[in-house]
Amino acid sequence: MEKLTTSEQLNSFIDSHDTFLFDCDGVLWEGSNVFPNVREAMQLLRSKGKKIFFVTNNSTKSRAAYLEKFKKVDIEANLEEVFSSANATAAYLKYVVKFPADKKVYVVGMAGITQELEAEGIRCFGGLDDAGAHDVDEIPDDPEVGAVVVGLDIHINYYKYCKAFTYLHNDPKRLFLLTNADSTFPTHGTIFPGAGSIATPLMTALERQPDAILGKPRLNMLESILAEHHLDPKKTCMIGDRLDTDIDFGNRGGLTTLCVLTGVTKENKLKSEDNTIKPTYYVDSFGDFASLSN
Amino acid sequence: MEKLTTSEQLNSFIDSHDTFLFDCDGVLWEGSNVFPNVREAMQLLRSKGKKIFFVTNNSTKSRAAYLEKFKKVDIEANLEEVFSSANATAAYLKYVVKFPADKKVYVVGMAGITQELEAEGIRCFGGLDDAGAHDVDEIPDDPEVGAVVVGLDIHINYYKYCKAFTYLHNDPKRLFLLTNADSTFPTHGTIFPGAGSIATPLMTALERQPDAILGKPRLNMLESILAEHHLDPKKTCMIGDRLDTDIDFGNRGGLTTLCVLTGVTKENKLKSEDNTIKPTYYVDSFGDFASLSN
Repeated sequence: MEKLTTSEQLNSFIDSHDTFLFDCDGVLWEGSNVFPNVREAMQLLRSKGKKIFFVTNNSTKSRAAYLEKFKKVDIEANLEEVFSSANATAAYLKYVVKFPADKKVYVVGMAGITQELEAEGIRCFGGLDDAGAHDVDEIPDDPEVGAVVVGLDIHINYYKYCKAFTYLHNDPKRLFLLTNADSTFPTHGTIFPGAGSIATPLMTALERQPDAILGKPRLNMLESILAEHHLDPKKTCMIGDRLDTDIDFGNRGGLTTLCVLTGVTKENKLKSEDNTIKPTYYVDSFGDFASLSN
Repeated sequence: MEKLTTSEQLNSFIDSHDTFLFDCDGVLWEGSNVFPNVREAMQLLRSKGKKIFFVTNNSTKSRAAYLEKFKKVDIEANLEEVFSSANATAAYLKYVVKFPADKKVYVVGMAGITQELEAEGIRCFGGLDDAGAHDVDEIPDDPEVGAVVVGLDIHINYYKYCKAFTYLHNDPKRLFLLTNADSTFPTHGTIFPGAGSIATPLMTALERQPDAILGKPRLNMLESILAEHHLDPKKTCMIGDRLDTDIDFGNRGGLTTLCVLTGVTKENKLKSEDNTIKPTYYVDSFGDFASLSN
């Protein structure tokens, strides 16, 4: 675990990789605030002809909506460069599960999940439609429900918990999928509970773990990227702020890894004896690379 | 573990006890439906001069409001017979913690908690005031917060999770109390997620367990009842529907225990090899005792 500080170290790191996979929240930005020098550092990589992918556990936006965010904050990105846990969930249901056309998915989560499911031709309901106040009365079963997908949901309510619980309790053969297991995510200069926390009432009440978790550190998204773009893992680096998702993902996938300290992970946690997940390198912020363009 | 079915068994059970502690949801009623013959069975115990207490993990109503419910469903009860996890939480803060007068409690839960806290002179906020839609923007810290209390909350939302998380994350010395840890509770002929499930996002995001859980199977309420009413534990029986709260509570408190099958626990679970919490007796329903009054 080497901290990159000098121009020599930063340059040598860039030169030894062809491809960079980026986590977004906590690395490029936090909410709508882009971290200092991120645009310049990203431009440097583009100017050197590096391949760039964005690999986010954020399931709240579809990839198309995520691309709008890149435009809004003025960072270059193309649709085929964006991989999200919501899209990974939809792809998993379509290609791995081969989810039947006569079944539908109940979604506890935001528009990113329902839009990605619909884009893959998978019927779904819930999501934003179940936001707001609802009487928690008797919840009828729906025999068409074949799966429940849970992701970060800032409109979570008791009705959604009861509905998801009822479907999975009534028929344990129904699939229970979690877009990602991040316990927190960085926002407003602090952290808030993430998808992995929001889903725990269901695990506790059902006495059941999800059948699959699609986001980092699970390797689904990496496998898709490597297969589609024929990359050499040894010349690919995962850049992220979370040890138990981003860095674990890169390490387990055989990539080099770079941890930035602008998000969830602080230097004392990174260096603590309790920490078993070590990146290959770490750096104060991704913007540090911008110094090389001077 | 003996199943009581004959009049002889039922009679002998009653005669060998002076005092009966009752769980309510799943034993006497489910929602607003009183189970068959419960009124008659309760009247039989009263006519035999038995002492009766209601020991509920339900924190949604204050004891005064709970008494209204008894009146509404026409089951005799007095205020001093009712013990709830909300009241136990307020008593714990007042007498055990000696919660400072210049501090206040943030409540994730229903009116039962805020009303019981206020009845003990403990300042609190949140509760029903934080129901409904709220922007989850930056959450300012409040130095007056000394504790966060979480109970079942059918108005749970992301704002409350973020607020509770923020207070406990900002200052780990703040107390984190859970009224009760029931993962589910019986309602509408099925079960829904309980307080112990609703609280788990905080435990997961904070990587922290509550400092205290006040409801059954913790013995706080039993200690209060035994001390106030000078009861003989050997002649006292706990009647409940949940193994990991009611029956564990009675067993650990040195009482005899009776499990009813009208609530969360089904006979196959009770008898399964995995079940380590065995009641002294069990019966299909508490209403079965009404047959003795014929």
